[in-house]
Amino acid sequence: MSREPILISGGWRESRGADDFIATNPATGKSFGVRFPVSSWEDCDAALAAAEEAFRGMREMPAEAFAAFLTAYAAEIERRTDAFVETAHQETALAKTPRLKDVELPRTTDQLRKAASAAVDPAWRLPVIDTEANLRSCLEPLGPCLVIGPNNFPFAYNGLAGGDFAAAIAGGNPVIGKAHPLHPNTTRLFAEAALAASEQTGMPSGAVQLLYHMAPENGLKMVADPRLAAAAFTGSRRTGLSLMEVADRHGKPIFLEMSSINPVVILPGALRENMEKVVKEFVSSCLLACGQFCTSPGFVILLEGDQTDAYLAEIQRRFVEAPTGALLSFDVRDNAVKGIQAWREAGAELLVGGSALQGPAAAVENTLLRVSGAKYLENADALQQECFGPASLQVIAKDVDEALAIIRTLDGQLTGGVYSATESFRRRGDDGDEDAYRLLAPELAQRVGRLLNDKMPPGVAVSPAQNHGGPFPATGHPHFTAVGFPASLRRFTKLTCYDHVRPERLPATLRDPLPCTE
Amino acid sequence: MSREPILISGGWRESRGADDFIATNPATGKSFGVRFPVSSWEDCDAALAAAEEAFRGMREMPAEAFAAFLTAYAAEIERRTDAFVETAHQETALAKTPRLKDVELPRTTDQLRKAASAAVDPAWRLPVIDTEANLRSCLEPLGPCLVIGPNNFPFAYNGLAGGDFAAAIAGGNPVIGKAHPLHPNTTRLFAEAALAASEQTGMPSGAVQLLYHMAPENGLKMVADPRLAAAAFTGSRRTGLSLMEVADRHGKPIFLEMSSINPVVILPGALRENMEKVVKEFVSSCLLACGQFCTSPGFVILLEGDQTDAYLAEIQRRFVEAPTGALLSFDVRDNAVKGIQAWREAGAELLVGGSALQGPAAAVENTLLRVSGAKYLENADALQQECFGPASLQVIAKDVDEALAIIRTLDGQLTGGVYSATESFRRRGDDGDEDAYRLLAPELAQRVGRLLNDKMPPGVAVSPAQNHGGPFPATGHPHFTAVGFPASLRRFTKLTCYDHVRPERLPATLRDPLPCTE
Repeated sequence: MSREPILISGGWRESRGADDFIATNPATGKSFGVRFPVSSWEDCDAALAAAEEAFRGMREMPAEAFAAFLTAYAAEIERRTDAFVETAHQETALAKTPRLKDVELPRTTDQLRKAASAAVDPAWRLPVIDTEANLRSCLEPLGPCLVIGPNNFPFAYNGLAGGDFAAAIAGGNPVIGKAHPLHPNTTRLFAEAALAASEQTGMPSGAVQLLYHMAPENGLKMVADPRLAAAAFTGSRRTGLSLMEVADRHGKPIFLEMSSINPVVILPGALRENMEKVVKEFVSSCLLACGQFCTSPGFVILLEGDQTDAYLAEIQRRFVEAPTGALLSFDVRDNAVKGIQAWREAGAELLVGGSALQGPAAAVENTLLRVSGAKYLENADALQQECFGPASLQVIAKDVDEALAIIRTLDGQLTGGVYSATESFRRRGDDGDEDAYRLLAPELAQRVGRLLNDKMPPGVAVSPAQNHGGPFPATGHPHFTAVGFPASLRRFTKLTCYDHVRPERLPATLRDPLPCTE
Repeated sequence: MSREPILISGGWRESRGADDFIATNPATGKSFGVRFPVSSWEDCDAALAAAEEAFRGMREMPAEAFAAFLTAYAAEIERRTDAFVETAHQETALAKTPRLKDVELPRTTDQLRKAASAAVDPAWRLPVIDTEANLRSCLEPLGPCLVIGPNNFPFAYNGLAGGDFAAAIAGGNPVIGKAHPLHPNTTRLFAEAALAASEQTGMPSGAVQLLYHMAPENGLKMVADPRLAAAAFTGSRRTGLSLMEVADRHGKPIFLEMSSINPVVILPGALRENMEKVVKEFVSSCLLACGQFCTSPGFVILLEGDQTDAYLAEIQRRFVEAPTGALLSFDVRDNAVKGIQAWREAGAELLVGGSALQGPAAAVENTLLRVSGAKYLENADALQQECFGPASLQVIAKDVDEALAIIRTLDGQLTGGVYSATESFRRRGDDGDEDAYRLLAPELAQRVGRLLNDKMPPGVAVSPAQNHGGPFPATGHPHFTAVGFPASLRRFTKLTCYDHVRPERLPATLRDPLPCTE
């Protein structure tokens, strides 16, 4: 069985790594017939050298060149739609339609095109010109970036095609993409499309490179290497923290998305007014793609009372009735079962589900647990750990003050939401939830990247106003977003000031007075 | 001898710390007759609790309130001008005029007023409104900040009045200011003025607090404490790295300014055209305030040749002739002598100076060293260490390629400059320096926060286009600047997105459509 080559410096070449791996279909448990290399340091070193060289070229290129590449790349992906959808479905068990074909692939090409548009509008660089002091500054690219994609979005967060990739390239940085080992065949298709687009648009040969896998110590060594300027990672907290430690030690920007339980507070008025809507939205959001979303509502805070009891009974009923599906891998299944077990050991009570499903697929039961606010507060660290999969913990506070105490224990999160009664319901005589909202929402907002009202967090719109980010440990830095253009480009930049630099030597963005300066 | 109280939660109170310290006049070696406390953890804890409480209040206050405080504070400082100038002169040996009275104090009050102006213009928050997706985002305050000021600017970088303080408050964050132990009397004056302004303008009592000193482990414990949201530090690399390690481990934003050698490349055409100007600018910049600027030109790269020999001879002559002055402390003097010695041990040749001066004052000779490019490249790490004081290393490259190799060894710096022949000089028949500039400047720019042409780096104008920042280890993150409004406010912020949040619950900045969205 032959082994796939890696993409280094514009060409496919045999990896120098001795080890390899094979991906498995999580719906059947069967392996695919293709071996992929685990790169040695020699491969990593070659990629870094080519990326450094590519950056010297990219530094001299106009933003239009990166936009042309990103646009051509989107078209090359679309030409291969069927292959992408079929391959990703086989590797991830995600539905071909609507998920892969109608949602995630269009989102991915849309992101590449939006990144292209963002690149050519210099506003994203926050240019400031002070003609009197003869000082001019703007954000500029950092240099070669390592982008490590997660398991749960084979397209939209792929290390070689997702939002991090698009933002890094749009900002003028070469990318060394690392495939997720659960979908190497999908990632190879991206590399082929990227190479075609790169050749069409004259990108430097090391601007886009692909490594399928590497030993953890070589990943850390790449982050430490002076030729690497920045990194982006989406995945588990454990791996994220190990990358963060090395990047921080070298003072190197790294964007990390490292898990989130996405707390949702459901206030009693919302249940009185809209029980069916709240139940439906929670159940469908929590079970969407078997709960394998970064923004899955894994932690719900409710207040004791009859309405809450009714809500709990109803969501249990629906969790039992709802179909189950194959998870992304057998590891994901095992970790979900372990996570549920850890919640139970920390004091939560299992309401429904909790076990792996028999059969060839990697699957777990739809799972709900509950814990009282008092018990949660005794063991807040363990009970706020993410359980990645179709599982959620319902935390029942005895009153609003206890709900506040619960919120104050929470680590940084990607999102946090509050459901509350509407104004018109209050006008019809209900007490409403305004006092509780005013007490709880500011404390929740302080701990999250995105605050929601009356909706569930999954579905991260690619909007310039989006924030897919948040305080540690949801991410590594609360100032930056992974989704949304142009803001996401700023993660891979440094601020540079030009002090009395002669006009002809200035970057184009700073040469002529702009219509709008700060 | 009584001991000064600390400022906690709006009142002066006795420190619980057992230890204390006394500041010394570095021009005379005599101690002042005032004891200041080294705070215990109990003091730190009280400050953190009050700051956390203050933040809950500040979160609900409009930016106009912070602007009112900053403006009142500037006025309170100005009312005490004579006391500030006299006290700071005694504590730092910096000249009363022009330095303290005519430059640094006006700069400080100007910064406070500029921060006030920046605060009330919501543009600094980078608000983005997407009405179609009903998503809105902007930068919001992080929470309590610890601001640790340096020794070299008793006013403009003071932990209780400088740029970091002004930016943190303007952004809506309470500040716990830590005095530099070399000028506690000056800092006490700031605290008195700040308290008066705070009372006049109705700031929460814990919005501005002062600790004079603390054991290093208590400083680190404060950074790790969950009640502290962020920190800012200007000072030595050793202390900065220890703070950074703790902040990074807790995923907490910290802005660190941690030394810089500020490389200046002087190309041969510049010497042929403007020898006198270059010599004069280098000598005066390097000896300004006895070299105690973050942006002092401590590292000059030249190309071998007669012009360089002439330049070296001339700067030596002027270094010998130039007056010497008292340094900020005897520690600064001892560290300067050690730094010079370390350069010599690493292979540099002493040209002039090098020794501490006799007499009551903390002083060192004006000092120049030289090293060949080849020798530098053998020991680049040791030879690019900062020597804080009136000392500079001249590195003589044999050609442009060697100069490029030297630049490529450099760590991140606050500034980097290039002197080159002008276009008109080239038109008069000189070869000029354009080829060398085109080769060297992009590599230098990549490593610095501010790139200069034909001027020396000291003199950090407070301009919206300024960047007083740079890649690690000059600072901790290359995206942010310590100087310049409104950009410097962004260091103490998180990005928050409001997703379908009801209009009446939105922050004011996001409520109405803005004239300009991204």
